[in-house]
Amino acid sequence: MMRRARVASRGVSDTFSRATAVTAREPVGDADHAVFDTEIHVGWDIMGNANGGYTLAIATRAMATMVGRDPLTVTAHYLSPGTPGAHRVEVSVVKTGKRLATATAALVNESTGREVIRVLGAFGSGDTDAPRIVNCAPPVMPAYEDCQQDRPLENQPIVAVADRLAMRLDPACCGFRDGEPTGDAEIRGWFAFADGADVDVFGLLLAADSFPPAVFNTDIGVGWVPTVEFTVHLRAAPAPGPLRCVFRSPYVAGGMLAEIGEVWDANDVLVAESRQLALQPRVS
Amino acid sequence: MMRRARVASRGVSDTFSRATAVTAREPVGDADHAVFDTEIHVGWDIMGNANGGYTLAIATRAMATMVGRDPLTVTAHYLSPGTPGAHRVEVSVVKTGKRLATATAALVNESTGREVIRVLGAFGSGDTDAPRIVNCAPPVMPAYEDCQQDRPLENQPIVAVADRLAMRLDPACCGFRDGEPTGDAEIRGWFAFADGADVDVFGLLLAADSFPPAVFNTDIGVGWVPTVEFTVHLRAAPAPGPLRCVFRSPYVAGGMLAEIGEVWDANDVLVAESRQLALQPRVS
Repeated sequence: MMRRARVASRGVSDTFSRATAVTAREPVGDADHAVFDTEIHVGWDIMGNANGGYTLAIATRAMATMVGRDPLTVTAHYLSPGTPGAHRVEVSVVKTGKRLATATAALVNESTGREVIRVLGAFGSGDTDAPRIVNCAPPVMPAYEDCQQDRPLENQPIVAVADRLAMRLDPACCGFRDGEPTGDAEIRGWFAFADGADVDVFGLLLAADSFPPAVFNTDIGVGWVPTVEFTVHLRAAPAPGPLRCVFRSPYVAGGMLAEIGEVWDANDVLVAESRQLALQPRVS
Repeated sequence: MMRRARVASRGVSDTFSRATAVTAREPVGDADHAVFDTEIHVGWDIMGNANGGYTLAIATRAMATMVGRDPLTVTAHYLSPGTPGAHRVEVSVVKTGKRLATATAALVNESTGREVIRVLGAFGSGDTDAPRIVNCAPPVMPAYEDCQQDRPLENQPIVAVADRLAMRLDPACCGFRDGEPTGDAEIRGWFAFADGADVDVFGLLLAADSFPPAVFNTDIGVGWVPTVEFTVHLRAAPAPGPLRCVFRSPYVAGGMLAEIGEVWDANDVLVAESRQLALQPRVS
């Protein structure tokens, strides 16, 4: 059974919202620049390195707060590992237009002064009355209850963030766990928070970066896949309930791969489209 | 017959390279900041608005010059129309690492002071010895000679940039030209420069933004499709010869659409993958 449901009204008191909270530092700089205090929490990491969707959610929350609009598309470049502790988000507004606002952000470690990620994003709102044309469909996979809980691989890094989630993988694409990759660089599964909180637009950023890399299902095998750049289009706020996700890496070459993702909600709305450029796994 | 071939040795004297040339302004700021002078040339526009791939190529050339490496992934946000005349590119290096360098750039109109685009990108080189896993293929379409030259639509904006190109569209996806959209939001075709110059990594940025929007082949129809954000992964330098390109917009909703593109070279190498978030066409 799903653990969500009755806790939807918790709002920002859920674990993920607390772990991505930002507070504008006083005094505020000017209309176009502000610094937000934040903290990378323990437990959203893979071997101590904070999940890239999680750090992007922190920076995006600061940007959205600054411009007072929802994120539509955000791009992060990963510069150094995110580790637990005090950080700041330096936000600069690039442009404020009628329909869109554009901003940049830098997530910086307060102790080391090192920049963790640099982000560029656009903020605004969609037009719900606009015509809708859909020539694609959610991934086909078993019901949530019939999918497999994500579990650590033997002799592989500890994925602490997995404990925060109630993710389930389609058993048909889990061959890589037993040394039998499917040969098709695709991973499908359900995304939900372990505490039952609904996923909002910021949670979508985590959803799009939480699954085992699709390339694990190829002969390249299992290893660290460092993200260079990660872009997420936030197409709509998701309806309550677990999300169906699919990630594909059809072209691995030159030591690099793209992973292309889709996140669908319970109403068959494509709520997020993601794409990242990553370095090919370093297999030991 | 193709007009390329014998001019490959022209190098930077070709039309596109001249139209995207940048010159570092003296004195150079410091190791991490520099300003480049450049010019938006006449003839790379749609109704006077410079093509988004063209302006991105200018900014990317300045960034690549600054960090001394090739572009791997660049993201542009479109802020105001690019119009012919003197511009500057303000480049800031975010990080210089062993394998990758990260930089931002702003393309600014010298007369108005308005920022045209903001860019965030990563630069470096691939690893040609790395294993290659390909689970996708170039678009299937007729030979270059059997495809249709792009021509202006009746009562539609003049696409000046089309004269710079020797593009050819697959006739099977040109229905929208005669008011008979295929119903499938896909456009396929060949990209080449009219002057016969080979396409380099900067030209790939133009290739990924030069075709009629794929959404023209839906009931939404033909209209202006303003790009919000455009990201291109530059996976390899293309081999000489015209490039096969395909663009798809499978999900239009909320007044927005993503257009997902692939650019393949003569050796069946996926040389660029693009994705943009755009506003739905404003049909009059």
